Amino acid sequence: MDPLSKIDFAKADGLVTAIAVDDVRGDILMVAHMNEESLRRTLETGEVHYWSRSRRRLWHKGEESGNTQRVRSLWIDCDGDVVLLRVEQRGGAACHTGRRSCFYRRLGGDVWTALGETVFDPREVYGK
Amino acid sequence: MDPLSKIDFAKADGLVTAIAVDDVRGDILMVAHMNEESLRRTLETGEVHYWSRSRRRLWHKGEESGNTQRVRSLWIDCDGDVVLLRVEQRGGAACHTGRRSCFYRRLGGDVWTALGETVFDPREVYGK
Repeated sequence: MDPLSKIDFAKADGLVTAIAVDDVRGDILMVAHMNEESLRRTLETGEVHYWSRSRRRLWHKGEESGNTQRVRSLWIDCDGDVVLLRVEQRGGAACHTGRRSCFYRRLGGDVWTALGETVFDPREVYGK
Repeated sequence: MDPLSKIDFAKADGLVTAIAVDDVRGDILMVAHMNEESLRRTLETGEVHYWSRSRRRLWHKGEESGNTQRVRSLWIDCDGDVVLLRVEQRGGAACHTGRRSCFYRRLGGDVWTALGETVFDPREVYGK
């Protein structure tokens, strides 16, 4: 049986939420979306491919920065509309801000504090 | 300033993705959605409230099973459309199947294998 038949792409216009977790440390690196094609491409190549909603195209993560993600394992949740990818994060950073994780701001009182590790300078990597 | 002004509820019809992570072990327990009211209620009470898309109402997590979630910290991602809650999971299980985490199925070859810890019997808890 096709294992992707367990995944409910129909619920949200062909997309599921995809969470990338660092396979070594176990923390969340980023959250994006996948359609069926991007998940098939991910499994075929072993490299994570998302669906970019803003650019409306397949997005090979790290295609610009070089910070690709190698799949170590794939998990689904109980109702099959979220996939969790345990990955090896090349370059040590998933976030376009240069931080290791996109979840670098924590609320304390009424203030968000930036706490995450910065790995690269986005002006150098993206030339912006 | 209202800290919730940093959260982009407009992108997806008033909802953001909400990920609950166990504050002790650091693993993902579940993924659901929040609207602004549910997040405000969560911060006011310290107990996680989601927005149930299927029931179209505020959902105090654990209201039926007793397995509520106490907020330990709140994080947002770089573009402010996903919130991450580090929680204390009462009863030790977040999933309606009785498992600790909703992410209990891992793909191996073409087969999904159930691996997660089962904490309670859903027939006893929900009377189904």
